[in-house]
Formats: sequence, structure tokens, C-alpha cells
Amino acid sequence: MSTAYADERGPGTGRRDAETTRAAIVKAARYLLARHAHADITLRAVAERAGVSPPLVLKYFGNKDALFSSVMNFEADVEVFLDAPLAELGAHMVRHVLTGQVERGADPILRIVFAPLHGEQGEILRSNFRSQVSGRLAERLTGEDAGLRAELAVSMLLGLGVMYGIARGPHVRAADIEEVVDRYAPAVQAQLASPSGARGRIE
Amino acid sequence: MSTAYADERGPGTGRRDAETTRAAIVKAARYLLARHAHADITLRAVAERAGVSPPLVLKYFGNKDALFSSVMNFEADVEVFLDAPLAELGAHMVRHVLTGQVERGADPILRIVFAPLHGEQGEILRSNFRSQVSGRLAERLTGEDAGLRAELAVSMLLGLGVMYGIARGPHVRAADIEEVVDRYAPAVQAQLASPSGARGRIE
Repeated sequence: MSTAYADERGPGTGRRDAETTRAAIVKAARYLLARHAHADITLRAVAERAGVSPPLVLKYFGNKDALFSSVMNFEADVEVFLDAPLAELGAHMVRHVLTGQVERGADPILRIVFAPLHGEQGEILRSNFRSQVSGRLAERLTGEDAGLRAELAVSMLLGLGVMYGIARGPHVRAADIEEVVDRYAPAVQAQLASPSGARGRIE
Repeated sequence: MSTAYADERGPGTGRRDAETTRAAIVKAARYLLARHAHADITLRAVAERAGVSPPLVLKYFGNKDALFSSVMNFEADVEVFLDAPLAELGAHMVRHVLTGQVERGADPILRIVFAPLHGEQGEILRSNFRSQVSGRLAERLTGEDAGLRAELAVSMLLGLGVMYGIARGPHVRAADIEEVVDRYAPAVQAQLASPSGARGRIE
């Protein structure tokens, strides 16, 4: 259904399949959302950056709000982010943030920092972040205050992403990934460990 | 020199002294910088939000770039942020980030997350951040890899600010400040402690 649009706009670029086009649109929307206020981003600007026509964006996503809802979803990224046994999860998440930054200039959870502080779009992004990132991590934890401990663990990972990708700290960027994992992951893991265990209780 | 402008624009608001006007302009610029790309912010918009005339903004800051350079400075905030003995600095910084968020909705270092990723303004903000925040913290540290350890400590604080002020994590916002300090500060402090000491060397 969509290849007609893609072909119409893409002479000489070859046939784009639906998956590629969809990904290009999401990537363009993320790029713009990271740099401009939501209200200032037009569908035309998204289409232009993705190299497709505005009607094609509508064809895939329905409308601007639906497009941004999709962009504001963390599900797919978090799947990989949390994919490790609990005992190794701290190191896994630190490594995942760093390799994402090094290899793709991207971060599985850092999009939350671009959430607009006011308006509905910011609320959607925050709500998704809570349920899909810190909330899902909390479900993995046992012991008291799992919600708070999950948020504090995620805080550390967010901060590492900000330092690497936004502040561009020269020392953290020059260090070996595994050196940073060694130094940073124990603090993350300490939030994940059951506090009951630390107090000598076995349940 | 500037009161004429202020008076001209402020009938009924009373006389504004230079310090108050300057602070209002800086506050307005920070507000807009936190929500819009630098290139999209006009001097007129800053002036309007500050409740002064555009010529008054020019009078105080010379031009838009000079205004934003001033806004992008961390010196004054960092003075208080780092104002504790090294042995208590982790707890002090965590407490300072949290009280800033709770009491003023502001954070001494969180402005770095609004740094544009491209362009000169982003570079200025990043460069100031490195020299005035993580660089100054590094100067306080002894032992190996002080630069990296300072960046990792600051990462944790940045992340806490993002979680509290941007992601608005419900658990961290509901918790007592001192409870968060107790849980979070040891990780920050571990980065500040001299690794030489941990290895049993005394120098």
C-alpha cells in the first residue's frame, strides 16, 4: 500500500520497503524532537528529513500525535536494556548505555531528557518512561522499596548517558568501556540487590 | 544608565534596580533555552518574558550571544554545590540537587542537558560545564584518574536531577530527601574517595 508513495518520491533511490521507511520516519522524528519543542515540529519537517512525502508519514502513522506516541515508546529498547540475569544487570545496563553511545550515538533511555516539561506530549513520554523503564526494572527487584531503588538505579544510567552523549565528558569518552563498567556498575548493582538480604533476613 | 529603559517600560511596576532586571533577563533566557532551540529564541521573546524592552536586554548584555554566554555559566551555582569538606561532599551534592529541585524546581548543574548538540552555543555550554563543574570537582580529588572519577560522580548527580525534574519519578519525589541521600550518596562518595587509599598505599 505504501510503496506507491515511496516510489513516487524516491526515483533513483530504489524501492524502500515499509519497514525501512517507517524506521526512517521514526528516526527523523526523534532527531527533531531532540532539538526542537514538540509544538514547533511540523509533519512536513519530519517528512523532509526522512526523505519521504508528508502524505506518506500520515499513511504510516495517522497523524502527528500518533507518530510522536510511537517515537515516545521505550518498549523495544528496554527489552535489550534489561536482558540479563539480575545478578549481572547493573553491569549489563552500564555496558549497554556505553556501547549504544559509542557505536550508534544513541542511548536506550536518554530520550526522556528531551521530554517537554509542559503539555500532553511530555506527560506521555514520562508516563511511558515510568511504566516501561523504571517500572519494569522495579518488577524485577525483590525486597523493600523496589520502586525507589529502581528509579535510583535508572538515575545513574541516565546520568551516564547525559555525561557521555550531551556533556561529552572527555574522561568518560576516553576510557575503556569495561573500565567504566568496573567503576560504575557496582553502584547500580547495589540499588538492585535486595536490601532484605543485606540485613541478613532470608525470606 | 539602564533605569531610564526600565522606567520607560515599567510604569506601575515601580523602579527596578539593575540587579533585579538583570536577574529577570537571565531567568527568562534560561526558561526559553530549556524549551526551545537556541536559534529559535529571539531577543524580543527573552525581553517579553522578562517584562522589559528588547533595547534593555541589549543594554545589559550587548547581544544575544553574550546574553547566552552569561546564562551558560555555572560558576555561581557550583560555588555552593561544592561547598563541603571532601569527606561529606557526596552527601552534600546529592542533598543540594534534591533541595534545589524541591524548593526551587531548579538544579545547579542540570542545564547541561539542554545543551544543543550542534553549533557554537552547545560547545560553550559543554566547555563551561567541563571546566566549571566536573573539572573543578576533579581538582578537589586526589589519587589516580581524578578526571574520570569526577565525571562519574557528576554523572550520578545529573541522573538524579533528570529523574527528579524531567522524568519526575514518583518514588524519588515521594521519598524524604535524607532517605535518598542515605541511599544514593555512598555511590557518589565512592567516586570521590582516593583509590590509592583503597589500595592501601599512603602517599
